[in-house]
Amino acid sequence: MNCFYTRFCERFSLQVPIIQAGMAGGIVSSELVAAVSEAGGLGTLAGAYVKPDDLRRSIRRVKELTKQPFSVNLLLYEEPGAYAVTPELVDWLNGIRSELGLAPWDGEIPGSTDEVDECFSVILEEKVPVFSVAFALPGKYGSAAKAAGMKLIGMATTLDEAKALHAAGVDAIVAQGGEAGGHRGTFSVEGKPAGESVGTMALVPLLVDALPDTPIVAAGGIMDGRGLAAALSLGADAIQVGTRFLTCRESTAHVAYKERLLTAKETDPQITRAFSGRPARGIANRIMHRFAESGITALPYPVQNSLTREIRAAAARRNDAEYMSLWAGQGVAMVKEAGQSAAEIVEMYMAQAEEVVKRWR
Amino acid sequence: MNCFYTRFCERFSLQVPIIQAGMAGGIVSSELVAAVSEAGGLGTLAGAYVKPDDLRRSIRRVKELTKQPFSVNLLLYEEPGAYAVTPELVDWLNGIRSELGLAPWDGEIPGSTDEVDECFSVILEEKVPVFSVAFALPGKYGSAAKAAGMKLIGMATTLDEAKALHAAGVDAIVAQGGEAGGHRGTFSVEGKPAGESVGTMALVPLLVDALPDTPIVAAGGIMDGRGLAAALSLGADAIQVGTRFLTCRESTAHVAYKERLLTAKETDPQITRAFSGRPARGIANRIMHRFAESGITALPYPVQNSLTREIRAAAARRNDAEYMSLWAGQGVAMVKEAGQSAAEIVEMYMAQAEEVVKRWR
Repeated sequence: MNCFYTRFCERFSLQVPIIQAGMAGGIVSSELVAAVSEAGGLGTLAGAYVKPDDLRRSIRRVKELTKQPFSVNLLLYEEPGAYAVTPELVDWLNGIRSELGLAPWDGEIPGSTDEVDECFSVILEEKVPVFSVAFALPGKYGSAAKAAGMKLIGMATTLDEAKALHAAGVDAIVAQGGEAGGHRGTFSVEGKPAGESVGTMALVPLLVDALPDTPIVAAGGIMDGRGLAAALSLGADAIQVGTRFLTCRESTAHVAYKERLLTAKETDPQITRAFSGRPARGIANRIMHRFAESGITALPYPVQNSLTREIRAAAARRNDAEYMSLWAGQGVAMVKEAGQSAAEIVEMYMAQAEEVVKRWR
Repeated sequence: MNCFYTRFCERFSLQVPIIQAGMAGGIVSSELVAAVSEAGGLGTLAGAYVKPDDLRRSIRRVKELTKQPFSVNLLLYEEPGAYAVTPELVDWLNGIRSELGLAPWDGEIPGSTDEVDECFSVILEEKVPVFSVAFALPGKYGSAAKAAGMKLIGMATTLDEAKALHAAGVDAIVAQGGEAGGHRGTFSVEGKPAGESVGTMALVPLLVDALPDTPIVAAGGIMDGRGLAAALSLGADAIQVGTRFLTCRESTAHVAYKERLLTAKETDPQITRAFSGRPARGIANRIMHRFAESGITALPYPVQNSLTREIRAAAARRNDAEYMSLWAGQGVAMVKEAGQSAAEIVEMYMAQAEEVVKRWR
């Protein structure tokens, strides 16, 4: 047992207090999840943006590769209400489509790929050990997951959200600091262009003090073992890591995305609603700049996401990172290597954290 | 010698690696500065927003109270170029003035209180041990300070700024994370409504790795000894603390401001240019909301500051926190007490940090 074995490790039957974030959008392979779990952490499959059958296949593949606990993450949302497609939005969309050689938008909103109920049924049927949610309280999914004996993790960006998750009976809460890449987990983003973005250093101890019986998982800007030691110093019981795994061997992020990550500065990741309609942090590129300049309002999540799907697919075919969603946290400037294995990354965090705490001995 | 004695302590002849931030605007008394320095940290007088004679009196008072090193901070800026006073700006200004019972603006821009050259001359003449700057490279002030044997500290919000400060020969660099209260230190804020806001967790190790010979001082969201231990884990050699000192016994912050701090949520501090023209983080209140709703552009720093001076003075007379600048960092939700002494706060940081590292022993 290492000196970073916490009550979170105990509660979730892990050896090391590291969650690999369940990043949606074709990034997380079953191999990545299994490698992290085999290394003693908690690997997480993305249950968003995937078809139920594909999710089932991915879960089964993880089970073939490891007997250790792993997690599946769902992005929960309410069906969007009425919205208006403005001429300015169509102009922006068609401007981008034209640059990518796509025909003008036909005016149809493609159906969402997100079949949350169906994906959750798969998670239940496959008896996934840990179920995690973002964007909202776990609600009916949480009750069903707990009744099935699963562990449950929620994500908070504020103290109020954390208290509500606690009241909903989650087994741990991810405190998502403003540094984090990808979608902001803020429950209600209405009137908040960037969601809530309280930094990890300020958010974690606030939640730790308010919810002493709930393990808090620090997320946002934690790029190595120094960050692990820092997070545990703040009172967290674990960390969640996304950006650091993007360039690893088992990551299925697009090669143009991986390349862009290696040269990104700390100020490049900005928050945008251009891709999905919800605020999310990614490396600023042409599509984000054009969206910001246009001053338009995105359609609600996940409608905007459906609307930009063809664009992202075309960008992927063309290897053009200027039109992809390049989710990344503010720690991305510390990502200088590609091709490490996920296990090596987990080992690196633990060995560096050990180095840090040696000085106090 | 305590176990948190770092090369920063050695270089600046301190016992504890804690800087009290030189918060401008009538907050920092000579008694506060002296108390922090007597407790082994580095107290800092604000050299901005004060008349040279007043600064001299404050410095002399600190010297009466302590023989320990202390610092004076200046906010450096270039003379603003041409700017336009729009009717919308005048409307906002007069709307606020009317609510406070002030006559409509007379159309004159009051002179800046900031006499940077004169204040720097006082700092030199008084042989202040440590000189610190924000908003820019130290330039001619830095050369003169070094020639006079002073220690020099700069503030960075990005790696590029930190590298430039290093090249300018500073003795330490404050890494100002996005959580921090008050003005963003970003050198060039043009086209950046909020300056740069990389979180402390991501910024500190990036600077530490790039500038191994320069002590990095972590700032932003560090509210207690857990934050101190976390910052040192990230590789920082010291921390800078502002918000935590605002409510202490020696703080001369307005009583209405102090009261507001005690009930603030972590999401209340927002970045605005309403008060000074430069992005700064304070608890959102009526004047900030009205400014945001108006959609207007502030005049450049320090012109906007001169323009809002009467408003802030009137708000102070009326004890009305809705029209004051309520500078605070995102850690403010952890401030639950007023009236501690500054020495008690320094001791609290050290004792809690000691508690944190005990677990690694």
